[in-house]
Amino acid sequence: MKKERLIFVTNDDGVTAKGFWAAIEVARKFGRVFAIAPKTMQSGKSQSITLYDPLFLDLVRSEEGLEVYSFTGTPTDCVKIAFDNMLVGKQVDLVISGINHGSNSAINVLYSGTMGAAIEGSFYGCPSVGLSLTDHDADADFEAAKHYAYQIIDSLLSAEEQQLPLCLNVNVPNIALSDIRGIKVVRQCRGMWREEFFRHEDPRGKPYYWLTGAYDNYEPEAEDTDEWALANGYVSVVPVQVDMTSYPHISQLKKILK
Amino acid sequence: MKKERLIFVTNDDGVTAKGFWAAIEVARKFGRVFAIAPKTMQSGKSQSITLYDPLFLDLVRSEEGLEVYSFTGTPTDCVKIAFDNMLVGKQVDLVISGINHGSNSAINVLYSGTMGAAIEGSFYGCPSVGLSLTDHDADADFEAAKHYAYQIIDSLLSAEEQQLPLCLNVNVPNIALSDIRGIKVVRQCRGMWREEFFRHEDPRGKPYYWLTGAYDNYEPEAEDTDEWALANGYVSVVPVQVDMTSYPHISQLKKILK
Repeated sequence: MKKERLIFVTNDDGVTAKGFWAAIEVARKFGRVFAIAPKTMQSGKSQSITLYDPLFLDLVRSEEGLEVYSFTGTPTDCVKIAFDNMLVGKQVDLVISGINHGSNSAINVLYSGTMGAAIEGSFYGCPSVGLSLTDHDADADFEAAKHYAYQIIDSLLSAEEQQLPLCLNVNVPNIALSDIRGIKVVRQCRGMWREEFFRHEDPRGKPYYWLTGAYDNYEPEAEDTDEWALANGYVSVVPVQVDMTSYPHISQLKKILK
Repeated sequence: MKKERLIFVTNDDGVTAKGFWAAIEVARKFGRVFAIAPKTMQSGKSQSITLYDPLFLDLVRSEEGLEVYSFTGTPTDCVKIAFDNMLVGKQVDLVISGINHGSNSAINVLYSGTMGAAIEGSFYGCPSVGLSLTDHDADADFEAAKHYAYQIIDSLLSAEEQQLPLCLNVNVPNIALSDIRGIKVVRQCRGMWREEFFRHEDPRGKPYYWLTGAYDNYEPEAEDTDEWALANGYVSVVPVQVDMTSYPHISQLKKILK
């Protein structure tokens, strides 16, 4: 008898987010689900870890084939406590992080708590999929995202191809399922956020700043990027690696640093 | 007359850290210094940004050639408020993040608030150097780190080589300056942290978890990594890039996701 799969689910919008429960719904189609989500909103937390605070874990739901906890840490902390404490000795077949309320395409892969957790999951040797829908709304419609999440995970888990990446950054455009043109495997688009700090005064007259901004796409014409895919009605899939070394620069740098 | 250089300094250990003031001391040898450090300890904050809280900025020191602020956000927030608000229209010649109390070699580049800020600085088109000393002590001896920081920055700023990387991850071993064998330009070592959550109970009997762990080096024999350089008495310098795309996986992935 084939062993039932074990899927770990986390997110960065917190345990109450609609997208988290959408991810659990997809995950349950593939096996048993063990989930730990941050207790509070952790958007923009990148791959941060909590070094200087104790962290509390609470059981949120337990039923046949599903266990869900909240954890007071970051998304990456959730992965760590799962793999290094709760699931030690068990084989996890897949990590799902999401479904995020909002895009994690392009350079957002570096800021994203969703992708921080997906990257962390890949360290433990499991295929890890970060899923995001390009809609920040708390009541966003996850139907299309669930459909493509299922399709992509099903393809990954049944693939016989040996050279698969461990981590995927999947973004789904916020359009009707019937309008989505399919999946594009693409690269991370170049660009950056130009921030505009909203400045106001608190009730006691002390100025404060609040981060806001707009994404500046450096290569809007390139057709092999995640930004292009999303803008043109495709689900974008970027295979993600974790070696930040800029290899082409090593030899140049050796010339000047002796 | 040659225009005086402008150097931006930040860190992740916070504005009171000895290593931050060591970085400022080095930076002042190259020009005017504008510095914004997190108000509180931000170790392990990766490239996280603060989306859901207002941020407060306070002047900490102002004298000829030096302005220092504290900011209630993350290291990356410090870079953003500097470049997108305080220094708009000014040419910044260099970003220094550090000097960190503790190593940021290998996979730590992804968790590190110091490196998060250095990477963020590189987005704005300036050479950005993350500096770390492999000693967590609050009263660590930064003499060797300052010496090599000066040497590396001087080489970078006077280089005529055109193909330089925008971001460097520099780690200095915690040994006497006279024992350091020189600089090695190397790649990010492969490995990961194996966490062991310290579990205890709070005063009301509720269990809590506290992150701790040990680094597992996957390639201790490889001599071209930052871990090897540090273990063998060298200052390690890794050129850092920000494209997380795993290019070799694109074609394989296209076969299974159609």
